Amino acid sequence: MRAVLVYSGGLDSTTLLYEYKDSIALAVSFDYGSKHNARELAFAAENCRRLGVKHLVIPLEFMGKYFRSSLLEGGADIPEGSYADDNMKSTVVPFRNGIMLAIAAGLAESYGLDAVMLANHGGDHAIYPDCRPEFIDAMAAAVNAGTYNGVKVISPYCNITKRDIALRGRELGIDYSLTYSCYKGGEKHCGKCGTCVERKEALEGFDPTEYEK
Amino acid sequence: MRAVLVYSGGLDSTTLLYEYKDSIALAVSFDYGSKHNARELAFAAENCRRLGVKHLVIPLEFMGKYFRSSLLEGGADIPEGSYADDNMKSTVVPFRNGIMLAIAAGLAESYGLDAVMLANHGGDHAIYPDCRPEFIDAMAAAVNAGTYNGVKVISPYCNITKRDIALRGRELGIDYSLTYSCYKGGEKHCGKCGTCVERKEALEGFDPTEYEK
Repeated sequence: MRAVLVYSGGLDSTTLLYEYKDSIALAVSFDYGSKHNARELAFAAENCRRLGVKHLVIPLEFMGKYFRSSLLEGGADIPEGSYADDNMKSTVVPFRNGIMLAIAAGLAESYGLDAVMLANHGGDHAIYPDCRPEFIDAMAAAVNAGTYNGVKVISPYCNITKRDIALRGRELGIDYSLTYSCYKGGEKHCGKCGTCVERKEALEGFDPTEYEK
Repeated sequence: MRAVLVYSGGLDSTTLLYEYKDSIALAVSFDYGSKHNARELAFAAENCRRLGVKHLVIPLEFMGKYFRSSLLEGGADIPEGSYADDNMKSTVVPFRNGIMLAIAAGLAESYGLDAVMLANHGGDHAIYPDCRPEFIDAMAAAVNAGTYNGVKVISPYCNITKRDIALRGRELGIDYSLTYSCYKGGEKHCGKCGTCVERKEALEGFDPTEYEK
């Protein structure tokens, strides 16, 4: 298998990059105008450089301009608290995984690769409809039917937790200080937003992250 | 129903715009670097203006930069002959409909609309995998599962021909001189490329198009 990875530079997709590095021919990151994009993308580039994986950054300015989400620049304030809280719904960027998978599928077809990979995981299901297995299965069927080469969608972490992913990464010796999660996009992780709370829980016992006091 | 239309400014989607104008709250066009984009988009804007439909143009420069297709600026020459010919395959822009539908789905969710519409038709099936009913059905399931509001994908022309579409447009009194089809992107339609041949056949008997001599 030779795949395109949808690669944010966060904990989950960085683990996928390292775990499947021999199958990943291309990593693609998207700059969709989120508050934390710049920091994520710098780490994404650095991890690709270290592994010798070709890396593209695709700008999607229209999301910041036309889409509604507190995650985007100009949107509402990022809410604090755990992911399970209803107010985290404001951080949803509508159909983001659908858009990123569709573009990655077009790239796979253009470069003669046979799969796209996504690091969605079980903990995302409650809030994000475009992280759930039903979505992934239907999108995989669409990508397969809509490409000449029958490109596949592979999401190896779809039914495990972020903690499971981090434990796998620890075994692989991944340096998680080279990943970024905080939705607020500050120099240090805030430690309070939903994604920081999730990150802390996932990395408990081996967390190299410097959080704000 | 209130829908987002994927709107190229060509014959098919212009007919859909006029036929479903009371249900279309937003028309979205994509500037993906094709040789004929500028001419199509000018007509798209003009038809939306006449009908009072809100119109967005979303640039997708990455397609011109990274995707392989003779349809794109910098690609190979556009082949001549009918659509059925194997060489028209070079005009495929990989997974284009998947990408456009995914972005339209995110817009529908952002604007509180409940459907996205696409003017793919039966004559496209032979060459373009992302125009076939299997693709549309799977993509509809993905969009439905991946959005909070269960956005629908509607493609009313999926099983009729371009000729059927044009006949419908004639009944509606559509001025087809305000549409553009030619893949070569010249001031006049070339009359020889696959899409011009198809256009001629569809409009036979009431074709207002001025073709090159």
